[in-house]
Amino acid sequence: MKITAVIMAGGRGERFWPRSRNSRPKQFLSLTADGETMIQKTVRRISSLVEPEDVYISTNSDYIPLVREQLPEIPKENILAEPAPRNTAPCIAFAAAVIGRKYDDAVMMVLPSDHLIGLETIFADTLKKAVKTAEQGENLVTVGITPNYPETGYGYINFGKSCGDAYAVEKFVEKPDLPTAEKYLASGKYLWNSGMFIWKLSSIMNNIRRFMPDIYEGAVRIGEAYGTDEFDETLEREFTSFRSESVDFGIMEKAENIYTIPGSFGWDDVGSWLAVERINKTDGNKNYFEGEVVAENVRHATICGGKRLIAAVGVEDIVIVDSEDALLICSKNSAQDIKKIIARLKESGRNELI
Amino acid sequence: MKITAVIMAGGRGERFWPRSRNSRPKQFLSLTADGETMIQKTVRRISSLVEPEDVYISTNSDYIPLVREQLPEIPKENILAEPAPRNTAPCIAFAAAVIGRKYDDAVMMVLPSDHLIGLETIFADTLKKAVKTAEQGENLVTVGITPNYPETGYGYINFGKSCGDAYAVEKFVEKPDLPTAEKYLASGKYLWNSGMFIWKLSSIMNNIRRFMPDIYEGAVRIGEAYGTDEFDETLEREFTSFRSESVDFGIMEKAENIYTIPGSFGWDDVGSWLAVERINKTDGNKNYFEGEVVAENVRHATICGGKRLIAAVGVEDIVIVDSEDALLICSKNSAQDIKKIIARLKESGRNELI
Repeated sequence: MKITAVIMAGGRGERFWPRSRNSRPKQFLSLTADGETMIQKTVRRISSLVEPEDVYISTNSDYIPLVREQLPEIPKENILAEPAPRNTAPCIAFAAAVIGRKYDDAVMMVLPSDHLIGLETIFADTLKKAVKTAEQGENLVTVGITPNYPETGYGYINFGKSCGDAYAVEKFVEKPDLPTAEKYLASGKYLWNSGMFIWKLSSIMNNIRRFMPDIYEGAVRIGEAYGTDEFDETLEREFTSFRSESVDFGIMEKAENIYTIPGSFGWDDVGSWLAVERINKTDGNKNYFEGEVVAENVRHATICGGKRLIAAVGVEDIVIVDSEDALLICSKNSAQDIKKIIARLKESGRNELI
Repeated sequence: MKITAVIMAGGRGERFWPRSRNSRPKQFLSLTADGETMIQKTVRRISSLVEPEDVYISTNSDYIPLVREQLPEIPKENILAEPAPRNTAPCIAFAAAVIGRKYDDAVMMVLPSDHLIGLETIFADTLKKAVKTAEQGENLVTVGITPNYPETGYGYINFGKSCGDAYAVEKFVEKPDLPTAEKYLASGKYLWNSGMFIWKLSSIMNNIRRFMPDIYEGAVRIGEAYGTDEFDETLEREFTSFRSESVDFGIMEKAENIYTIPGSFGWDDVGSWLAVERINKTDGNKNYFEGEVVAENVRHATICGGKRLIAAVGVEDIVIVDSEDALLICSKNSAQDIKKIIARLKESGRNELI
């Protein structure tokens, strides 16, 4: 069966300010020394499984120029611009309806655009297993990440009995507190929820029809208008009327035949500047430096320089990020407060810096 | 008696990098919110005592354009460019010989160009007392600062019996260790050495002739050539042949009739970035911010921004200084290591940044 992919690239993250801006969120940035952006990496690492003409980018109209610039190999008509943010369920329904115009049925992989994967061959092999499981029935398959520490920032997947390469999902659970996360880890029955889904078009459409009939009908009308003069108008009308809903809550927690494929391939959701030292090579003092940096007595620092030299003296556990018009100096245990800075810039009308 | 002043402005300090550079050292920078440079302040605050045509600037040829730009009221011929750095004694001998061409005798004040003074009226009154003491004989007068804590970074003046407004100097002592500084403070017989000197031309020339006859003779030859076509050549030949010597060691520690006038006028030698919070108004979190700064949970920070916004989050006891081509982030207890950064820039040939 033909394999297609939908890359979800509509996010407007603030956690990589001042490099990320409303006009260029995380998925369009490079956070690694190789210079490749997150979305470029996402598309490249599935290139052995999916043809470029079967890769769809779900984003919003502001980011179409960035997608075309960074992914020139993707056909223009495969860039699906959502007229309004409505979370993942309407996004997936829209994409499935559009792909349904090209193929009667096909495997559809749904992938976040802003995660990082260290071991790409193992990742591709994991996806192949997921595709096989998806093809074998009306199965909804997620990739679960084998946890190696009790992370409290991710949702978890509780799995049960095995079935070939896959495991039946017992339930999805929200971000736990630390004792609960430690219990999950010790039990050996929990995986991290990576937000990657694999299913057949027919499987997901049947489930959308069952659990979200309103969204199903709107998506069908969008699919029917795709490629016609009415498309823009239909999309605007139908999509903006959708309620906001996640596929996790709207489908996965309710449907039957939910499976997970455990994967261990150096996955990182690169959730904040703190991740940069994990995903890059650090020096003997556990520093990660980018650009021209001169450091004296500096430890555990992430310094992302721009055009100017950065001299750091006697500092530790700090993140320093330079950009053309703004500079961030943040202690590592305050990374969550970057959003307060952005809120204050908004208040004071400095929108060009956001 | 006519009062003249020599402002010593040849220093090439590194302690205010990246704002100070070889091409623009501390005396030509503003370190206060009013925008006035250190040397401009120095000249302005003696303006009630000395006419502009009697103010001489001792510097080196690289800084002549800066002096003319920042002090347009000073006559061009009063800018004395030393051909080579030879410390304070040759500098003073050169200036005294030049001023001696204009006045048979006069009071000569010798003042650093890069100190800050809070209470300028009291400072002027202190100088007046020093002038009076200088006029009354062949006296060499220094201004001593009443110490308010046991500073270990300054030299001290041990004074004895009073004589009008002045006190006889018993001896000059080097920078003490902390227990010694505490002892000095408790004794009530020690002042900080401010490096400000007041004497008559005749007094200092007599003492130079006595303790440094070689420098005296060279200085006389420079004075004779001043205003003639031979001046540049004579200055180059005589001055470069001088040995390097401080006036403290060469004259003050050996001569008789040394007096000090105690002063308490908010003096600060502004020795490093750490001084900036002392000499400026800080906010409730003891922060000093310059330029556009947005701070969350920041304490005891000195942030001198440039053209770009600086966002600081969760940091304390830190100095952040932005400039066009270099940025400094330095913990307050590492300020002395800034010179290591400059040494490394030198090593790697980044001379445009020094």
